[in-house]
This record gives sequence, C-alpha cells and structure tokens, in this order.
Amino acid sequence: MMRETQLIQKIRKVSGAASGSLILGIGDDAAILRPDAREDLVFTSDLLLEDRHFTREIYSPGDIGHKALARSLSDLAAMGAEPVFCLVSLGVPADLAGAWVTRFYRGLLALAKKYKLTLAGGDLARFEKIIMDVTCCGRVPRGKALLRSAAKSGDSIYVTGKLGKDWRRNRRPEPRIAAGIQLRRLGVRAAMDLSDGLSLDLQRLCVESQVGAEITANLSQEALHGGEDYELLFTAPPALKLPARAGDVPIVPIGKITSRHKGRVLLHGQPLKPKGYDHFSTGVL
Amino acid sequence: MMRETQLIQKIRKVSGAASGSLILGIGDDAAILRPDAREDLVFTSDLLLEDRHFTREIYSPGDIGHKALARSLSDLAAMGAEPVFCLVSLGVPADLAGAWVTRFYRGLLALAKKYKLTLAGGDLARFEKIIMDVTCCGRVPRGKALLRSAAKSGDSIYVTGKLGKDWRRNRRPEPRIAAGIQLRRLGVRAAMDLSDGLSLDLQRLCVESQVGAEITANLSQEALHGGEDYELLFTAPPALKLPARAGDVPIVPIGKITSRHKGRVLLHGQPLKPKGYDHFSTGVL
Repeated sequence: MMRETQLIQKIRKVSGAASGSLILGIGDDAAILRPDAREDLVFTSDLLLEDRHFTREIYSPGDIGHKALARSLSDLAAMGAEPVFCLVSLGVPADLAGAWVTRFYRGLLALAKKYKLTLAGGDLARFEKIIMDVTCCGRVPRGKALLRSAAKSGDSIYVTGKLGKDWRRNRRPEPRIAAGIQLRRLGVRAAMDLSDGLSLDLQRLCVESQVGAEITANLSQEALHGGEDYELLFTAPPALKLPARAGDVPIVPIGKITSRHKGRVLLHGQPLKPKGYDHFSTGVL
Repeated sequence: MMRETQLIQKIRKVSGAASGSLILGIGDDAAILRPDAREDLVFTSDLLLEDRHFTREIYSPGDIGHKALARSLSDLAAMGAEPVFCLVSLGVPADLAGAWVTRFYRGLLALAKKYKLTLAGGDLARFEKIIMDVTCCGRVPRGKALLRSAAKSGDSIYVTGKLGKDWRRNRRPEPRIAAGIQLRRLGVRAAMDLSDGLSLDLQRLCVESQVGAEITANLSQEALHGGEDYELLFTAPPALKLPARAGDVPIVPIGKITSRHKGRVLLHGQPLKPKGYDHFSTGVL
C-alpha cells in the first residue's frame, strides 16, 4: 500500500507536464488554464461506479480508466469541442493502491494522449468500492458549441455509427470527438450524445428544443432503447450538405424534426414510449 | 423515488439560470463558459465519501452539501481566486432520491449563493452509499494565482484564523475566499489551504518551493497536526505590509522560510515529523 503523497507523485510523473493553455497541472491546490478569448470552454462531469456501471470481473483496470474518460469525452464530442484537460477523482480500496491504480491511469492516459488532453488534477481517497468522477474541459470557437436546444422544425435527424451495440463487448468505447468537431465545422448546430438510448435521448433533445421528432428509419429495439452507445445524435437543415461519414463513422439519417407534438417522439407515426436507461430508477447490471 | 429526469429538472429549477461568463448551465451535455482573456481560470475537484469523510448520523443533508462545496472552495481560496461555477456529481441510495437530495442541494446552494457561484452541471447516479465529487472553477487576474511553489527564502510564514479546530463541532466550515482574494491583492504570491494538518501541508509547500521552513510560534499538537482546518497557509516577504486581518479572520505569523533543509520543516530548531492526515493510509472516522 502506498501513501497518498507517493501515489500522487507517481500519477504526476506519468501524467506529463502542463502545456499549451494549461499552464499549471497536478501539484498545487488547483490547475490553471489561460483561456483564449476567441473560444468558449465547455465542462462536463461523469461518475463511474463499481457494481453500478462496471464490475471488476468483466472490466480490467485499464478498461475502467478508458471508460471513465470516454464517457466524459463523449459529452465534449456532443458539443463539437476539442478536448483540453481532465480532472480525475478516484476512490479505491486500500489494497488496490499500487498496481491497480497504475494500470487504471495507464488506460485513462492512453485515451487522453490520443485526444491530446492533459490530466490536470483531481482527488484521491480510500473507499470500500472503486468509484470515480471525471471532469473534462473542451474548447469550441465562440458561439459554435452544438446544443440540445438548437434543433429546428424541418431539420433532418441523424445518428453517427451503429446503434444498439452490445456494451458488454465494447469495453473501450471510442468517443466521437473527430465526428463532433467535423459536424460543427460543417455548420451543424444541434447535437447530443447517445448514452441512455435513442428513444429517451431524442425525447430530451425535443424537450430542450421545444420541437417534436418523427423517426422514419427501421431500427431494432436495441437501436431504439439500448444505452451506452456513445454515438452522436444530431439534426441539420436538409439543405446542409453532409458527407457520408464524419470522423471515421457513417452518418445515418433516421427521421425529421417537426413543430407538432412538442417534446414527443413518433416512430412510423405512432408515439414512441421512451424506454432508455434511467440512471436513477433502473440498474445497468 | 423519483426518476433521474424529474430529479434533474428539480435541481435545475433550484440552481438558478446561467449568468455572467457562464452562458449555459444545467440541461445540455456540458456547461459553457465564455472566458475573459485578462483572467486565468483555476480548477479543482474534491471527493466527499460517506463513512470516510462524514456519517449520516452526525451530518445533516445540508451539512454534507455545504461541506462538499466548502472543500473545493477552500482550494479556490488558496489560489486567491473568485468562484465562478461548480459541477456536482452525486451518488445516493434510491431511498434518498427525494427529500434528502433536495436538502443536500439546499445546503450546497446556500453556500454557492454566498460566494456567487453557479451550479452549472454534474452527474447523478444511484449508489449504495452517499458519494460526491465537487469540481469548482474560479478566476484570477492573469498570472496572479497564489502558488505552492512561490515561497522564497526569507519570507515570513503566516496562517489565517485558528488552527486545530475540532472538525466534529465545525460541520459547516467557512472557506477563506475573501481572505485569499485580499491577500492576492496585497501582493502575496505563495499560499495553500490547510486541509491535512500544518506539519504535512507546510512540508508540501516546502517541497514545491524547494525551500525549508522554521516554525517559531508556540502551537498545540492539534494546531500542528490536526486536519480539516480549511484555513490558509501563506508566505510573504517581511517587507510586505499586511493588515492584522484578511477577509474576516486574523493573520498569524508562525515562522520563516529558509534556504536550508529544503523540503523539511523545523519546529523550534528540531525536525518536525509530518503527522497530518493522509487520505489514503489513515481513516478520518
């Protein structure tokens, strides 16, 4: 078992130095970012809890590190943002304080490196279960963040990639960062990430945009209601020319935004009851 | 028991609207901040875990909300920063999802209101114990953040307020935000918050600044080693004129920074073994 100070020194060593707009990383009371006035900054936090979102039996320490960061990066992708830094708060049983924690950070930092974001700080505590909260900061040009509230009547509705994936086989989901940035550059304004199932998430987008949605594509039950897809849901005027792929994933049209039945989703003309994953009233395992 | 969507709507309602530089709060995949190029932004995250940092028997839901935010605000105070926003990630047992969560947020938001920071987002999950992670963002004029690494040989060492408080009697500690901002404006450059005990925290400051420290004040064992004080430790050249109080707390000189015995603390000429609170290898309860 290592002491906190030793463990932090170790994490600090592997996390690399502050660079770019992040002028101070791990080692002080707080990290420091020197912002660029031409940009907006976006912030999101995501919990990942043992026996709630993962088990030690199925997920390796590296898988858990990857997934904890991927969940938060998926939110940055949904804003069309470029990742800047993350803060990682980790609670672990004392007997995992050595090798397990190292392998956890290795998984997390491999993904961080891929998307060029820095581990800038966080917290560390002993706890009876493995729990973590990852906060990510991203940047977008001023006023260009993709919003849940920006869908307009007449927009086409799209998703990236394949919905209804089996998350048990997908222990290291890839956040759609490249797709989000590309869509934002193409002029897309409305998006969110699909983490709790299309039927529930599309309804949330409709509520925020005060519009309705009609799904016309033929989608499986898994695609309609399965959670943990980490794909992007977005809308765009039909006049906006979109390529067949964004980032390295296909763009699939699935329906239309309407001004009728606000806050509701229809599937082939029939009301679609949201059955997606509610983090509070249902369990994932 | 409430569903996640209802609970989030409720939190969103009590948290108030985004304002100032925070242009989008709760309700999208991420919060959006429009930064000011004359400022640096500082970020910190702090875990607060049931039966580790608090028990439900001793702490009311409002106390827990207060304390979760106060820990993170204490880090902003240590940077001399003005609070901007916070993200709150909360895991709670399903049977607490109604009244308990409301009272928790009421305690947290009362403190947030006092320091004019907005609850901008976070996460919510069902979990067997109460766990939370609070991320705070603050702002300082460019290059003016107080640093652990800025102490210089010859500086006097000070603390704010009274050390060695009994944290069991101090369930709603006051973060030293006003003191931190005032000290920064007076020209102080080196500070940290005292959360793990003076003997351990002063040693950390010495390591970061590559200096030594000599305590000459007569301090009790509680003042030397007790944790959870949430006071500020800072250093300044003797030539810098300081008032008797910063914010609404006294400033107390306790010793000198030296170029000798780097990374070590002496008490009346004898090495002082750091005995403060290590979050990893010892328990608080």
